Amino acid sequence: MPGRERADLERYLHEHIPLSRVMQVSVVSVHADGVILRAPLAPNINHQDTVFGGSASALAILAGWSLLHTRLAAAGIASRLVIQRNTMHYDLPITGAFTARSFIRTPAAWESFTRMLERKGRARLTVSCALEFNDQTAARLEGEFVALGVTP
Amino acid sequence: MPGRERADLERYLHEHIPLSRVMQVSVVSVHADGVILRAPLAPNINHQDTVFGGSASALAILAGWSLLHTRLAAAGIASRLVIQRNTMHYDLPITGAFTARSFIRTPAAWESFTRMLERKGRARLTVSCALEFNDQTAARLEGEFVALGVTP
Repeated sequence: MPGRERADLERYLHEHIPLSRVMQVSVVSVHADGVILRAPLAPNINHQDTVFGGSASALAILAGWSLLHTRLAAAGIASRLVIQRNTMHYDLPITGAFTARSFIRTPAAWESFTRMLERKGRARLTVSCALEFNDQTAARLEGEFVALGVTP
Repeated sequence: MPGRERADLERYLHEHIPLSRVMQVSVVSVHADGVILRAPLAPNINHQDTVFGGSASALAILAGWSLLHTRLAAAGIASRLVIQRNTMHYDLPITGAFTARSFIRTPAAWESFTRMLERKGRARLTVSCALEFNDQTAARLEGEFVALGVTP
Protein backbone atom coordinates (compact mmCIF):
# COMPACT_ATOMS: atom_id res chain seq x y z
CA MET A 1 0.00 0.00 0.00
CA PRO A 2 1.96 3.00 -1.24
CA GLY A 3 -0.20 5.52 0.70
CA ARG A 4 0.54 3.77 3.96
CA GLU A 5 4.26 3.47 3.13
CA ARG A 6 4.32 7.22 2.50
CA ALA A 7 2.59 8.01 5.80
CA ASP A 8 4.81 5.54 7.69
CA LEU A 9 8.01 7.06 6.32
CA GLU A 10 6.83 10.60 7.08
CA ARG A 11 5.94 9.64 10.65
CA TYR A 12 9.28 7.87 11.08
CA LEU A 13 11.24 10.91 9.88
CA HIS A 14 9.27 13.37 12.02
CA GLU A 15 9.58 11.19 15.13
CA HIS A 16 13.25 10.25 14.88
CA ILE A 17 14.80 13.22 13.09
CA PRO A 18 13.14 16.29 14.67
CA LEU A 19 14.83 18.62 12.18
CA SER A 20 12.68 17.05 9.43
CA ARG A 21 9.57 18.12 11.38
CA VAL A 22 10.65 21.75 11.79
CA MET A 23 11.68 21.80 8.11
CA GLN A 24 8.07 20.62 7.45
CA VAL A 25 9.31 17.76 5.29
CA SER A 26 6.53 15.72 3.69
CA VAL A 27 6.84 12.45 1.78
CA VAL A 28 5.45 12.79 -1.75
CA SER A 29 6.10 9.24 -2.94
CA VAL A 30 7.99 6.09 -2.02
CA HIS A 31 9.01 3.67 -4.75
CA ALA A 32 11.85 1.20 -5.18
CA ASP A 33 13.29 3.43 -7.89
CA GLY A 34 13.08 6.64 -5.88
CA VAL A 35 11.74 8.56 -2.91
CA ILE A 36 10.43 12.11 -3.33
CA LEU A 37 10.38 14.46 -0.34
CA ARG A 38 9.07 18.01 -0.27
CA ALA A 39 9.66 21.05 1.93
CA PRO A 40 8.17 24.57 1.89
CA LEU A 41 10.25 27.74 1.75
CA ALA A 42 9.29 29.47 5.04
CA PRO A 43 11.06 27.25 7.61
CA ASN A 44 14.02 26.81 5.24
CA ILE A 45 14.55 30.40 4.15
CA ASN A 46 17.80 32.35 4.33
CA HIS A 47 18.76 36.03 4.44
CA GLN A 48 18.32 36.27 0.65
CA ASP A 49 14.76 34.88 0.71
CA THR A 50 15.94 31.70 -0.99
CA VAL A 51 16.34 28.19 0.43
CA PHE A 52 19.26 27.95 2.87
CA GLY A 53 21.97 25.60 1.54
CA GLY A 54 21.90 23.65 4.79
CA SER A 55 18.18 22.93 4.34
CA ALA A 56 18.72 21.90 0.72
CA SER A 57 21.50 19.51 1.79
CA ALA A 58 19.41 18.13 4.65
CA LEU A 59 16.41 17.38 2.40
CA ALA A 60 18.67 15.66 -0.15
CA ILE A 61 20.37 13.55 2.54
CA LEU A 62 16.95 12.57 3.96
CA ALA A 63 15.73 11.53 0.49
CA GLY A 64 18.87 9.47 -0.11
CA TRP A 65 18.68 7.79 3.29
CA SER A 66 14.94 7.12 2.86
CA LEU A 67 15.49 5.29 -0.42
CA LEU A 68 18.11 2.94 1.05
CA HIS A 69 16.05 2.46 4.22
CA THR A 70 12.94 1.59 2.17
CA ARG A 71 14.72 -0.79 -0.20
CA LEU A 72 16.60 -2.59 2.58
CA ALA A 73 13.35 -3.01 4.55
CA ALA A 74 11.57 -4.35 1.45
CA ALA A 75 14.44 -6.83 0.94
CA GLY A 76 14.13 -7.92 4.58
CA ILE A 77 17.71 -6.87 5.37
CA ALA A 78 18.24 -5.42 8.85
CA SER A 79 21.05 -2.86 8.84
CA ARG A 80 22.28 0.41 10.22
CA LEU A 81 22.84 3.12 7.60
CA VAL A 82 25.52 5.75 8.03
CA ILE A 83 26.32 8.59 5.65
CA GLN A 84 30.03 8.75 4.96
CA ARG A 85 30.50 11.45 2.38
CA ASN A 86 28.45 13.74 0.17
CA THR A 87 28.97 16.27 -2.55
CA MET A 88 26.34 18.89 -3.23
CA HIS A 89 26.11 21.25 -6.21
CA TYR A 90 23.85 24.28 -5.90
CA ASP A 91 22.85 25.24 -9.44
CA LEU A 92 19.95 27.68 -9.05
CA PRO A 93 18.44 29.70 -6.20
CA ILE A 94 15.21 28.15 -4.86
CA THR A 95 12.49 30.66 -4.00
CA GLY A 96 9.58 28.39 -3.09
CA ALA A 97 8.56 24.86 -2.07
CA PHE A 98 11.00 22.32 -3.45
CA THR A 99 11.38 18.56 -3.79
CA ALA A 100 14.25 16.11 -3.46
CA ARG A 101 14.10 12.99 -5.64
CA SER A 102 16.59 10.26 -4.78
CA PHE A 103 17.63 7.46 -7.10
CA ILE A 104 20.39 4.94 -7.68
CA ARG A 105 22.25 5.79 -10.84
CA THR A 106 23.43 2.26 -11.69
CA PRO A 107 20.89 -0.50 -10.92
CA ALA A 108 23.67 -3.12 -10.87
CA ALA A 109 25.24 -1.30 -7.90
CA TRP A 110 22.24 -2.25 -5.77
CA GLU A 111 22.79 -5.96 -6.45
CA SER A 112 26.45 -5.91 -5.47
CA PHE A 113 25.62 -3.72 -2.44
CA THR A 114 23.12 -6.23 -0.99
CA ARG A 115 25.34 -9.21 -1.88
CA MET A 116 28.31 -7.59 -0.12
CA LEU A 117 26.16 -6.61 2.87
CA GLU A 118 24.91 -10.16 3.36
CA ARG A 119 28.34 -11.69 2.83
CA LYS A 120 30.58 -9.25 4.71
CA GLY A 121 28.11 -7.45 6.98
CA ARG A 122 29.22 -4.13 5.53
CA ALA A 123 28.72 -2.48 2.14
CA ARG A 124 28.85 0.94 0.55
CA LEU A 125 26.53 2.54 -2.00
CA THR A 126 26.26 5.93 -3.69
CA VAL A 127 22.79 7.45 -3.90
CA SER A 128 22.00 10.40 -6.14
CA CYS A 129 19.47 13.10 -5.45
CA ALA A 130 18.02 15.90 -7.59
CA LEU A 131 16.47 18.94 -5.96
CA GLU A 132 13.72 20.34 -8.12
CA PHE A 133 12.03 23.72 -8.08
CA ASN A 134 9.73 25.06 -10.79
CA ASP A 135 10.39 22.02 -13.00
CA GLN A 136 14.12 22.69 -12.99
CA THR A 137 16.98 20.89 -11.31
CA ALA A 138 18.15 23.41 -8.71
CA ALA A 139 20.74 21.28 -6.90
CA ARG A 140 22.31 17.82 -7.06
CA LEU A 141 23.69 15.58 -4.34
CA GLU A 142 25.79 12.43 -4.50
CA GLY A 143 25.86 10.71 -1.12
CA GLU A 144 27.92 7.70 -0.13
CA PHE A 145 26.25 5.56 2.52
CA VAL A 146 27.64 2.60 4.43
CA ALA A 147 25.29 -0.13 5.64
CA LEU A 148 26.31 -2.24 8.59
CA GLY A 149 24.49 -5.52 8.99
CA VAL A 150 22.75 -6.06 12.31
CA THR A 151 21.16 -9.12 13.83
CA PRO A 152 17.44 -8.68 13.15
CA MET B 1 34.39 44.41 20.46
CA PRO B 2 34.50 40.65 19.99
CA GLY B 3 31.60 40.00 22.41
CA ARG B 4 29.34 42.33 20.49
CA GLU B 5 30.40 40.84 17.14
CA ARG B 6 29.52 37.41 18.47
CA ALA B 7 26.09 38.51 19.68
CA ASP B 8 25.44 40.41 16.42
CA LEU B 9 26.27 37.38 14.27
CA GLU B 10 24.13 35.11 16.42
CA ARG B 11 21.17 37.50 16.20
CA TYR B 12 21.64 37.84 12.44
CA LEU B 13 21.65 34.07 11.91
CA HIS B 14 18.62 33.47 14.15
CA GLU B 15 16.65 36.27 12.49
CA HIS B 16 17.44 35.55 8.85
CA ILE B 17 17.99 31.80 8.80
CA PRO B 18 15.25 30.37 11.05
CA LEU B 19 16.70 26.85 10.81
CA SER B 20 19.73 28.11 12.79
CA ARG B 21 17.36 29.08 15.62
CA VAL B 22 15.62 25.70 15.79
CA MET B 23 19.03 23.99 15.59
CA GLN B 24 19.91 26.19 18.64
CA VAL B 25 23.07 27.41 16.96
CA SER B 26 25.22 29.68 19.12
CA VAL B 27 28.26 31.70 18.10
CA VAL B 28 31.30 30.74 20.19
CA SER B 29 33.82 33.10 18.61
CA VAL B 30 34.31 35.37 15.62
CA HIS B 31 37.83 36.10 14.40
CA ALA B 32 39.33 36.93 11.02
CA ASP B 33 41.01 33.53 11.00
CA GLY B 34 37.91 31.58 11.90
CA VAL B 35 34.35 31.48 13.19
CA ILE B 36 33.27 28.83 15.69
CA LEU B 37 29.60 27.87 15.95
CA ARG B 38 28.08 25.38 18.35
CA ALA B 39 24.89 23.29 18.44
CA PRO B 40 23.46 20.87 21.02
CA LEU B 41 22.45 17.29 20.22
CA ALA B 42 18.71 17.32 21.05
CA PRO B 43 17.31 19.41 18.14
CA ASN B 44 19.82 17.82 15.74
CA ILE B 45 19.44 14.16 16.71
CA ASN B 46 18.66 11.28 14.35
CA HIS B 47 17.18 7.80 14.71
CA GLN B 48 20.55 6.48 15.95
CA ASP B 49 20.84 9.09 18.74
CA THR B 50 23.72 10.75 16.91
CA VAL B 51 23.81 14.08 15.04
CA PHE B 52 21.83 13.96 11.79
CA GLY B 53 24.11 14.44 8.74
CA GLY B 54 21.89 17.26 7.51
CA SER B 55 22.39 19.17 10.77
CA ALA B 56 26.14 18.60 10.64
CA SER B 57 26.23 19.92 7.05
CA ALA B 58 24.05 22.88 7.93
CA LEU B 59 26.25 23.94 10.88
CA ALA B 60 29.39 23.64 8.72
CA ILE B 61 27.83 25.69 5.91
CA LEU B 62 26.74 28.37 8.42
CA ALA B 63 30.26 28.55 9.87
CA GLY B 64 31.79 28.87 6.39
CA TRP B 65 29.31 31.54 5.32
CA SER B 66 29.77 33.42 8.63
CA LEU B 67 33.54 33.65 8.14
CA LEU B 68 33.25 35.13 4.63
CA HIS B 69 30.42 37.44 5.73
CA THR B 70 32.49 38.69 8.70
CA ARG B 71 35.69 39.22 6.72
CA LEU B 72 33.95 40.96 3.83
CA ALA B 73 32.11 43.28 6.27
CA ALA B 74 35.41 44.06 8.05
CA ALA B 75 36.99 44.88 4.68
CA GLY B 76 34.06 47.19 3.85
CA ILE B 77 33.10 45.14 0.79
CA ALA B 78 29.37 44.87 0.09
CA SER B 79 28.52 41.60 -1.60
CA ARG B 80 26.04 38.78 -1.88
CA LEU B 81 27.42 35.36 -0.95
CA VAL B 82 26.13 32.21 -2.59
CA ILE B 83 27.24 28.65 -1.89
CA GLN B 84 28.00 26.82 -5.10
CA ARG B 85 29.33 23.44 -4.09
CA ASN B 86 30.37 21.56 -0.97
CA THR B 87 31.88 18.25 -0.05
CA MET B 88 31.34 16.81 3.40
CA HIS B 89 33.13 13.87 5.01
CA TYR B 90 31.54 12.27 8.07
CA ASP B 91 34.36 10.65 10.02
CA LEU B 92 32.91 9.83 13.44
CA PRO B 93 29.42 9.70 14.95
CA ILE B 94 28.63 12.74 17.12
CA THR B 95 26.70 11.96 20.31
CA GLY B 96 26.62 15.35 22.03
CA ALA B 97 27.02 19.11 21.54
CA PHE B 98 29.40 19.84 18.69
CA THR B 99 31.20 22.78 17.13
CA ALA B 100 32.02 23.86 13.58
CA ARG B 101 35.23 25.83 13.09
CA SER B 102 35.66 27.48 9.69
CA PHE B 103 38.95 28.66 8.24
CA ILE B 104 40.61 29.56 4.96
CA ARG B 105 43.27 27.01 4.18
CA THR B 106 45.49 29.26 2.04
CA PRO B 107 45.74 32.87 3.27
CA ALA B 108 46.85 34.02 -0.20
CA ALA B 109 43.49 32.87 -1.61
CA TRP B 110 41.76 35.59 0.40
CA GLU B 111 43.86 38.30 -1.23
CA SER B 112 43.14 37.16 -4.77
CA PHE B 113 39.46 36.67 -3.85
CA THR B 114 38.97 40.28 -2.70
CA ARG B 115 41.08 41.65 -5.58
CA MET B 116 39.00 39.73 -8.10
CA LEU B 117 35.74 40.75 -6.39
CA GLU B 118 36.62 44.43 -6.54
CA ARG B 119 37.89 44.22 -10.11
CA LYS B 120 35.33 41.89 -11.72
CA GLY B 121 32.39 42.11 -9.27
CA ARG B 122 32.50 38.33 -8.87
CA ALA B 123 34.92 35.96 -7.17
CA ARG B 124 35.06 32.44 -5.80
CA LEU B 125 36.64 31.11 -2.63
CA THR B 126 36.85 27.75 -0.88
CA VAL B 127 36.26 27.75 2.87
CA SER B 128 37.12 24.76 5.05
CA CYS B 129 35.30 23.70 8.16
CA ALA B 130 36.09 21.15 10.87
CA LEU B 131 33.32 19.72 13.02
CA GLU B 132 34.59 18.86 16.45
CA PHE B 133 33.16 16.67 19.15
CA ASN B 134 34.99 15.51 22.27
CA ASP B 135 38.26 17.08 21.06
CA GLN B 136 38.19 15.04 17.87
CA THR B 137 37.48 16.03 14.29
CA ALA B 138 34.19 14.30 13.57
CA ALA B 139 33.48 15.73 10.10
CA ARG B 140 35.06 18.00 7.50
CA LEU B 141 33.53 20.31 4.92
CA GLU B 142 35.01 22.11 1.94
CA GLY B 143 32.60 24.72 0.62
CA GLU B 144 32.99 26.80 -2.51
CA PHE B 145 31.29 30.19 -2.23
CA VAL B 146 30.78 32.84 -4.90
CA ALA B 147 30.62 36.49 -3.92
CA LEU B 148 28.79 38.92 -6.16
CA GLY B 149 29.61 42.57 -5.69
CA VAL B 150 26.68 44.85 -4.93
CA THR B 151 26.42 48.61 -4.82
CA PRO B 152 26.68 49.46 -1.11
